[in-house]
Amino acid sequence: MTQTTARVPQEERSRAMRARLLEACVELLVERGFAGTTTTLVSERAGVSRGAQLHHFPSKNDLVFAAVEHVTNVRGDELAAAASRLPGGTRRTRAVLEMLADHFTSPVFTAALELWVAARTDADLLAEVAPLEQRVGRDTHRLTVELLGADESLPGVRELVQATLDLVRGLGLASTITDDTRRRMRILDRWAEILEEQLA
Amino acid sequence: MTQTTARVPQEERSRAMRARLLEACVELLVERGFAGTTTTLVSERAGVSRGAQLHHFPSKNDLVFAAVEHVTNVRGDELAAAASRLPGGTRRTRAVLEMLADHFTSPVFTAALELWVAARTDADLLAEVAPLEQRVGRDTHRLTVELLGADESLPGVRELVQATLDLVRGLGLASTITDDTRRRMRILDRWAEILEEQLA
Repeated sequence: MTQTTARVPQEERSRAMRARLLEACVELLVERGFAGTTTTLVSERAGVSRGAQLHHFPSKNDLVFAAVEHVTNVRGDELAAAASRLPGGTRRTRAVLEMLADHFTSPVFTAALELWVAARTDADLLAEVAPLEQRVGRDTHRLTVELLGADESLPGVRELVQATLDLVRGLGLASTITDDTRRRMRILDRWAEILEEQLA
Repeated sequence: MTQTTARVPQEERSRAMRARLLEACVELLVERGFAGTTTTLVSERAGVSRGAQLHHFPSKNDLVFAAVEHVTNVRGDELAAAASRLPGGTRRTRAVLEMLADHFTSPVFTAALELWVAARTDADLLAEVAPLEQRVGRDTHRLTVELLGADESLPGVRELVQATLDLVRGLGLASTITDDTRRRMRILDRWAEILEEQLA
């Protein structure tokens, strides 16, 4: 009994420490980019000793990958929750697009972009990142199909959903260095009209 | 006369040296990313002394910015040349989209992406990159309007052209870590159908 109670707080502390490291890492990716995210800065910001950090994440790549995977999962849950609050009727398509665009302009997208670009020229990192990106891509596609009520057995519908996701990804990339919310809103208005026409 | 002939080869050598530095820098951005592109590697690859390099480009940021600006201009000329060879008639819209998608999946896009992401967290670099991006964005938009024969005085046409460019930017980003030419071709087929319908 004593053993069990001693072990549980230890496990909890370890989990909490891991979570703090991941959150600190994502914040630094957004603020300073991949190159500026050093393991020293992460351990300082998380208030975790270097030894404890190395126990959880032996290398910077391990830490950055786990951090992006973690926020991607959290964000996936948030997307699913936001999806359940979407309106029905005529405003629905536009609301789905705004939800997706919010996702692709969020700090999670920015952190993922930093990881993604770093992985492009780092084969070890790419071997981890590519399967994560594929899984996330499939999940986001499936969610979008469901939210739009799109019937992918009809010709051209699958490509329309893919184009929608590539469009919001392009909008997300554009927003990383120029704030163009107004432009984005007008484009989403227009795309919502077309999507409704095409899916009707 | 002697002075003039002595000066001209000197100026030519200097121009050629500058061009070699810019080309080497772009190659390294594509191969190793922004962080991996050191000024030492660039001078080695270009076969230019450190002193001569510093004369042309006092800092790494100067060099990288000039390199991306240079290839962007070259690529702009190439785009204009490719545009003059586009077919007319029913295949034109699809051909315009393929030309744009080729541009956004080219090494020039990759080098620009590296610069872009680095500028996100580097205020000095951003001050230079943001106006370049705006100019390139305007030029590409204008070219696309012209190639598609789009009439932007009609409601929704401007946003459709913008969405087209955001779509190809999103496709370009996706292609940096996963090779998805087949997926891209199908999406472009579908987008061409929509564009033709909407612009008719």
